[in-house]
Amino acid sequence: MLLPHIKQPGDLKSLSVEELVSLAEEIRSFLIEKLSVTGGHLASNLGVVELTIALHYCYNSPKDRMIFDVGHQAYVHKILTGRMERFDTLRQHDGLCGFVKRSESEHDVWEAGHSSTSLSAAMGMALARDLKGEDHKVIALIGDGALTGGMAFEALNHIGHERKNLMVILNDNEMSIAPNVGAMHNYLSKIRSDRHYLRAKDELEVLLKKIPAIGGKLAKSAGRVKDSLKYMMVPGVLFEELGLTYLGPVDGHDLSKLIETFHQADNVTGPVLVHVVTTKGKGYKPAEVDSHKWHGISPYKIESGQVLKSVGNPMYTEIFGRTLIELAEQDERIIAVTPAMPSGSGLVPFSKEFPARMIDVGIAEQHAATMCAGLAMEGLKPIFAVYSTFMQRAYDQIVHDICRHNANVMFAIDRAGFVGADGETHHGVFDVAFLRHIPNLVLMMPKDENELRHMMKTALDYDDGPIAYRYPRVNVAGVPLDSELKAIPIGNWELLRKGEGYAVIASGPMLQVATEAAEAMKREGLQVGVVNARFLKPLDENMLRELARQHTKLIVLEEASEAGSLGSAVLEFYAKEEIQDAQVRLMGISDRFVEHGSIKEQRAEVGLTVEDVCLKLRKWVAEPAYGMGQSV
Amino acid sequence: MLLPHIKQPGDLKSLSVEELVSLAEEIRSFLIEKLSVTGGHLASNLGVVELTIALHYCYNSPKDRMIFDVGHQAYVHKILTGRMERFDTLRQHDGLCGFVKRSESEHDVWEAGHSSTSLSAAMGMALARDLKGEDHKVIALIGDGALTGGMAFEALNHIGHERKNLMVILNDNEMSIAPNVGAMHNYLSKIRSDRHYLRAKDELEVLLKKIPAIGGKLAKSAGRVKDSLKYMMVPGVLFEELGLTYLGPVDGHDLSKLIETFHQADNVTGPVLVHVVTTKGKGYKPAEVDSHKWHGISPYKIESGQVLKSVGNPMYTEIFGRTLIELAEQDERIIAVTPAMPSGSGLVPFSKEFPARMIDVGIAEQHAATMCAGLAMEGLKPIFAVYSTFMQRAYDQIVHDICRHNANVMFAIDRAGFVGADGETHHGVFDVAFLRHIPNLVLMMPKDENELRHMMKTALDYDDGPIAYRYPRVNVAGVPLDSELKAIPIGNWELLRKGEGYAVIASGPMLQVATEAAEAMKREGLQVGVVNARFLKPLDENMLRELARQHTKLIVLEEASEAGSLGSAVLEFYAKEEIQDAQVRLMGISDRFVEHGSIKEQRAEVGLTVEDVCLKLRKWVAEPAYGMGQSV
Repeated sequence: MLLPHIKQPGDLKSLSVEELVSLAEEIRSFLIEKLSVTGGHLASNLGVVELTIALHYCYNSPKDRMIFDVGHQAYVHKILTGRMERFDTLRQHDGLCGFVKRSESEHDVWEAGHSSTSLSAAMGMALARDLKGEDHKVIALIGDGALTGGMAFEALNHIGHERKNLMVILNDNEMSIAPNVGAMHNYLSKIRSDRHYLRAKDELEVLLKKIPAIGGKLAKSAGRVKDSLKYMMVPGVLFEELGLTYLGPVDGHDLSKLIETFHQADNVTGPVLVHVVTTKGKGYKPAEVDSHKWHGISPYKIESGQVLKSVGNPMYTEIFGRTLIELAEQDERIIAVTPAMPSGSGLVPFSKEFPARMIDVGIAEQHAATMCAGLAMEGLKPIFAVYSTFMQRAYDQIVHDICRHNANVMFAIDRAGFVGADGETHHGVFDVAFLRHIPNLVLMMPKDENELRHMMKTALDYDDGPIAYRYPRVNVAGVPLDSELKAIPIGNWELLRKGEGYAVIASGPMLQVATEAAEAMKREGLQVGVVNARFLKPLDENMLRELARQHTKLIVLEEASEAGSLGSAVLEFYAKEEIQDAQVRLMGISDRFVEHGSIKEQRAEVGLTVEDVCLKLRKWVAEPAYGMGQSV
Repeated sequence: MLLPHIKQPGDLKSLSVEELVSLAEEIRSFLIEKLSVTGGHLASNLGVVELTIALHYCYNSPKDRMIFDVGHQAYVHKILTGRMERFDTLRQHDGLCGFVKRSESEHDVWEAGHSSTSLSAAMGMALARDLKGEDHKVIALIGDGALTGGMAFEALNHIGHERKNLMVILNDNEMSIAPNVGAMHNYLSKIRSDRHYLRAKDELEVLLKKIPAIGGKLAKSAGRVKDSLKYMMVPGVLFEELGLTYLGPVDGHDLSKLIETFHQADNVTGPVLVHVVTTKGKGYKPAEVDSHKWHGISPYKIESGQVLKSVGNPMYTEIFGRTLIELAEQDERIIAVTPAMPSGSGLVPFSKEFPARMIDVGIAEQHAATMCAGLAMEGLKPIFAVYSTFMQRAYDQIVHDICRHNANVMFAIDRAGFVGADGETHHGVFDVAFLRHIPNLVLMMPKDENELRHMMKTALDYDDGPIAYRYPRVNVAGVPLDSELKAIPIGNWELLRKGEGYAVIASGPMLQVATEAAEAMKREGLQVGVVNARFLKPLDENMLRELARQHTKLIVLEEASEAGSLGSAVLEFYAKEEIQDAQVRLMGISDRFVEHGSIKEQRAEVGLTVEDVCLKLRKWVAEPAYGMGQSV
């Protein structure tokens, strides 16, 4: 066994290539075994075992900066940089992070959970190196999926122009999470596999050798043409045209070839792109066969590849996908748009039912949003299905292209609230705050899956502008589903439980917390009301006025940024209406990022549990004067 | 005169090419004359006179959809679609909008003020057309600058993949607002001007004709190579590789050639890109010579090209630029980053002083932000100088790459608040709301240019994470400037005027409004305090507690979205601290977009004038019970 002796990347340097090959196999076994217990991003990490070994063999981290785009493919990097022992705690509270994490190791120089950031980070680091007169490598490892995100192109455009020494490693596995789409993908496929294309390249070489034999006037032309042709027949002409030297494609599972190519790259002045072809899931049959399913995986049985999923109710995602099919059967205007997340967004069944009405644009949230505005202007009802956290990428397009145009775009915002193990880059805790101030937008959140279905109908019937519903990454409660879907009046809240003097305003999963707290307080003799604030915008102004009239003390409870979200909206409403005697307290996520763990742990960490609500209520009861015009 | 007879685009159809040429000259004279009075985007519109005529001559608007990227180059389109008479009111309140405007004309199918949106909009419209079984052209007109914005590439990647019929017209004038940078720009330049490149293409044709003469084994190879070569020697290989048919480059001032090329494009199946080379400012010498200066121009004398600028104090922008030089002389860590706005952001003098420390990334706000994070991680102090409205594009990068990393990035947010004639796409009224909820960020706004300078020093000295200052698009007051710059304690507000019972909390230009209102109320016997809330985050919690202790009635006055901005922050603070007797009312921009006009008119429209503040105060004095625990 070699692996136990690798405590830091320097330990690789003394190994032979044969030993590196063995090490790769050991790492594969380690990953397959460990992740069978913890779950995690198996397929992408199996794909980069040799690539990561070769990088650490050829370069000197942390002096040489290794930047992993969407850092979930850095498990091998973690193993090689002294974190092997911690894999039992992967993605758990206080355990090893599933992404690159600066606080974990000096070898982690860039954190990401959103794609396509690595080239920009690398450019910044390369510029800084040169300004400071330092001398080290800056290496960005980016997948072919991430390469099509707009900001990666912005970075390429800049990198090719500035011509700093910088190495881009294109990890081409034909997948991001779902199979990739887009012209860039087609182009890369052509390089990889088009025999005609490659043969033409070889034959050109032969032909060019013959050309000088052509005499007369043509000789001089031929020379010039040759120069151009040689340049243009490089397979990566697109990258070459953008100013990067292209090397590849190289087999990403062949350690000798990888090492050789990196040495070649070291001799290039200016930016270089090394095109490495890898197989996602490499070395573990089930993951090779269905790398999509094995992208992020729950614990599994190693021998059979059987995934040990807890049996339970479906996720909101699935209810959304099913209901969309029902609605689309009756309404031809519906067209679904996903930025490379057909499965994650529950749209696979829809895509089979309505292939022409399902558009996967690749990792391209900005384009997706603005394209939806274009679709809406032509009378269709596009639905942009997107995770809350990735929707952040389209903020400007939502403001400028959708809401300013008041276009009839529908949004299905998945993963609203905490997401658990993926941690701080993936929580959907800002969308209420970044959407609520945009004029013309309606924003909803359902209390259960039945209400989600009615909200989807509400959005479809609404033709006055953009409308969104957000739902969490949790299993549904399993309530009965109404067969007939009815639109909910815009801005209409629901009093779920009548109280006396106190009420909790909440939406989504926080209603469960509120209800349990109300039950607990009832046992202590306090009647606490619960309000389903199913519209986060607009508010139910009548209900808020009525609550103030009754002198009800209000807690706004939300799994969202305390700044700028629903609590803030309620306060603004009362201030605007000049209703001074409303008494409102906020329970949300205070000004901080929250790390990986379980959703339950995350809620506990920020104080959003039943007990937290009870404590707040008890304190309020004990100190009523606080709220009655008393100075502090 | 032909122009007076063109009431709608159909009127062009009967004209000869010679007449179209004359018409172009008439339109040029019209634009030069009208804009000499109103000001406006002269240079870009002079550049597209023939191009716009040719489009309306060859296609049928509004059936055929013409989408203008960054719609400020649509003046000719407006002239040809019946809006000639309204040019006297250009960019004025209730007058003709300086951008494409759907409410103005059925020929305006897409509005934009931010760049790079047209391809996505076109893709949406083309998809809708095909789904609905309709048959019309979809045409996107995009500049070479806008083409490098990431979302344009996301769209190209999708367009090239789906292969819908769609026409992209690349208006290549080598400029966006400033001269373009980037690899794509270099590539286009090469196509346009590299004689070697073009000659090689011609000579290849000749050579290829000779190759069949080569006998023997090579004959077959030669055929295959020829196929590949022909394809690869198209000048627009980069676009061809992405799946678009490339036509061009064509002279954008030659009407015959334009019309011929459009006919050619009509015969192409799938997406086509027509590369049109134009001269910004064409036909008006001063604008041709300095198209940068003449991009957006104030009124001018036609003969001399002398711009009639009102003499006045410099803009905040200029003070920023000057001060940055002072600071950079003493601190080598400063590096300035601009997304294609070196002049608009006041950075031209800096770029001359420190060329190596000034990075223009092109229209690429996302890349710019993330690159700043990379620079900061290497110990530099990057300053991202960006307009508030364009900063929206980098929202996700600010959250995910800068604030989550707690990177020491400085932001200079220009054009905060209303911007006047550019109107609703350009106001900086959302940044407080979209930044305030992001953990780790400090956000400031100065009361005057002297305080701006101290804030710049504050930001430079601050090494605990990201820090931003925002300033308006107005002339400074002309206050004396302190020579020694001192950091302001983080979160420290300033009591500008002591009051009794009432106070206005404001920042930036709203402090002037507050002060004048306080003066007016003093004449009516009311002492109104004025608080300079120079930190929008964090708040001055001590001062807020003290104000509540004194039972001071507070108005938060801000030229920003009422939802989620400073007023909201003050309310949240009191709710969080459980200080119930604070009395806060909000004066901001209620939930709406505000159209073009003067800044004064825009403030009046939303109720942010001195009189509005006085009215609010008088009402509060008259109805004190409202705020004292009385029910409504």
